[in-house]
Amino acid sequence: MSDDQSAISARDAKRLFAGLGAAPAIVLAVSGGPDSVALMWLAARWRRALARGPRLIAVTVDHGLRPEAAREARDVKRLAQGLDLPHHTLKWTGTKPKTGLPAAARDARYRLLARAARKHGATHILTAHTRDDQAETLLMRMLRGSGIAGLSAMARETERDGVRLTRPLLDVSKAQLIATLNKARIGFADDPTNRDPAFTRPRLRALMPALAEEGGDARNLARLAARLARANAAVEVLVDGAERYLALKDREAERAGFDAALFAAMPEEIRLRLLKRAIDRIGHEGPAELGKVETLLAALDRASAEHAGTLKQTLAGAAISIAKGRIRVEPAPPRRTRSG
Amino acid sequence: MSDDQSAISARDAKRLFAGLGAAPAIVLAVSGGPDSVALMWLAARWRRALARGPRLIAVTVDHGLRPEAAREARDVKRLAQGLDLPHHTLKWTGTKPKTGLPAAARDARYRLLARAARKHGATHILTAHTRDDQAETLLMRMLRGSGIAGLSAMARETERDGVRLTRPLLDVSKAQLIATLNKARIGFADDPTNRDPAFTRPRLRALMPALAEEGGDARNLARLAARLARANAAVEVLVDGAERYLALKDREAERAGFDAALFAAMPEEIRLRLLKRAIDRIGHEGPAELGKVETLLAALDRASAEHAGTLKQTLAGAAISIAKGRIRVEPAPPRRTRSG
Repeated sequence: MSDDQSAISARDAKRLFAGLGAAPAIVLAVSGGPDSVALMWLAARWRRALARGPRLIAVTVDHGLRPEAAREARDVKRLAQGLDLPHHTLKWTGTKPKTGLPAAARDARYRLLARAARKHGATHILTAHTRDDQAETLLMRMLRGSGIAGLSAMARETERDGVRLTRPLLDVSKAQLIATLNKARIGFADDPTNRDPAFTRPRLRALMPALAEEGGDARNLARLAARLARANAAVEVLVDGAERYLALKDREAERAGFDAALFAAMPEEIRLRLLKRAIDRIGHEGPAELGKVETLLAALDRASAEHAGTLKQTLAGAAISIAKGRIRVEPAPPRRTRSG
Repeated sequence: MSDDQSAISARDAKRLFAGLGAAPAIVLAVSGGPDSVALMWLAARWRRALARGPRLIAVTVDHGLRPEAAREARDVKRLAQGLDLPHHTLKWTGTKPKTGLPAAARDARYRLLARAARKHGATHILTAHTRDDQAETLLMRMLRGSGIAGLSAMARETERDGVRLTRPLLDVSKAQLIATLNKARIGFADDPTNRDPAFTRPRLRALMPALAEEGGDARNLARLAARLARANAAVEVLVDGAERYLALKDREAERAGFDAALFAAMPEEIRLRLLKRAIDRIGHEGPAELGKVETLLAALDRASAEHAGTLKQTLAGAAISIAKGRIRVEPAPPRRTRSG
């Protein structure tokens, strides 16, 4: 994989799919764009070279958002048939939310893919995320004001709904995938939204060459994302330990609160994550915003430093209080509805 | 400090210099650029409003690198005299290295400033680093392929050679400092190298507006740097604990090596930092490059996973070996000189 521009050889692909040969069946998530079409083509070639290997099932999710989607799904089916792979198109039929559409579409996509995997006895879903996606995601989250957890790289493998979600192309450049398709004379859909400056990702993509000039190419940014994921994992281990130490997860202990002095002795990052975890677990308004937890922690720290300091605040549906040297996180009473 | 463009009021400045009123004397590092001239002006106004307060001593370091430097130092002296502050120009007379000049100049600067502080009985050195410097540094290191430790924000206060190095303007924008000077009708030197595209920082500065368009303004980037510093500090606490656990710092224990199985059970980030710390402490070729320590750790992990695996490598003047379930880091024998 040293050359970022050259087609991926059969030997390279064998390394990319290492560990997948023993799976009974694998679902390939194929949108029809170059990345996922290359994934399908590479996986089919890899499978053909094996005496025994997993059944491959290509799946396209039609989100019902773009009129061309149905045609693109048919194009993928034709390509899949040419590669002797069964293909299924799954439709997202649920109601579309007005805000957070990309996130809702992603959720629906993974749900449909997981259902297809279970139906076909597949243990793995393969997606075509590349190193470029990794770099763009890092940059996007960095500019949006994320914390280290949000900047962490996608992992090669995660589990979701009992299925392994695997990203074999995470160290591969998009340019290599396109070179692979060109060499194999395979066509792919060109989604114009990928260049539409109305969307964030295309705008960031346009910035990438200037960043690469300064050393921040996709390879370096993806490596940074991996390093941040590694550091984040270590911090999580520390938070797990701190949580056990404070017995935060014990329902009884939670009611009694935890010792403010023990809490105060921990590193700031750990205090912050303990607090966020407790609020996210106990509150009823979804995950708390990092910036708000930071502000709350600063207030708690100030109250805790005072002799017999007290404080009571609510955040994301949780009531956080400090009194008599104990910090408590409890469900907040329901908000009064505004009369307007 | 909510308005990023407005002049800094006397009340704002009081907050910026909080905690410094009790110092006997303070050295102000003033290069003559807008940031440090504003620092000097703000500090002088703050001091005048105090009934009792520290003596302020303005110091300019002439690195002997630009012909205008001597004149700029005289301009600073004149400004300082107008503010009733003593001023001293210190010259960097040492030999200049051919590579790593900015780092060597920075080292020399801090050494000279620390010497001035001791001479004048000052407990603090104030520098004029702004939020913009913080953001630029993050971006530069990010693009250059740093790890989380390298991305961590400068702290408001660090200690160096027994003197507190304090950066009171770290949450202030450069635009605010310029507005402050304009309002006070104070001139400042315009260093053309600040816009010279032959240097990295000016090129990155030119990228900042495009990044700000996507949400990544200096405020957000500086906040990210602070968050990374916070996470990094927590990881360091964990590494300290792991080091004690493995008794790595005990000379005797070091000779005996440490248990590979205990090491293997730790999070990757912790293993990496333990290894880097040991190599940097024991090797005689300066700090090891992060990427090289990563490669070494991967090799160690592979050898460690094998039954009775062995490995011996050198890095940055340290010899790292694994044998009989123990990992050792020892001084490497001197390299043979190449015969060319």
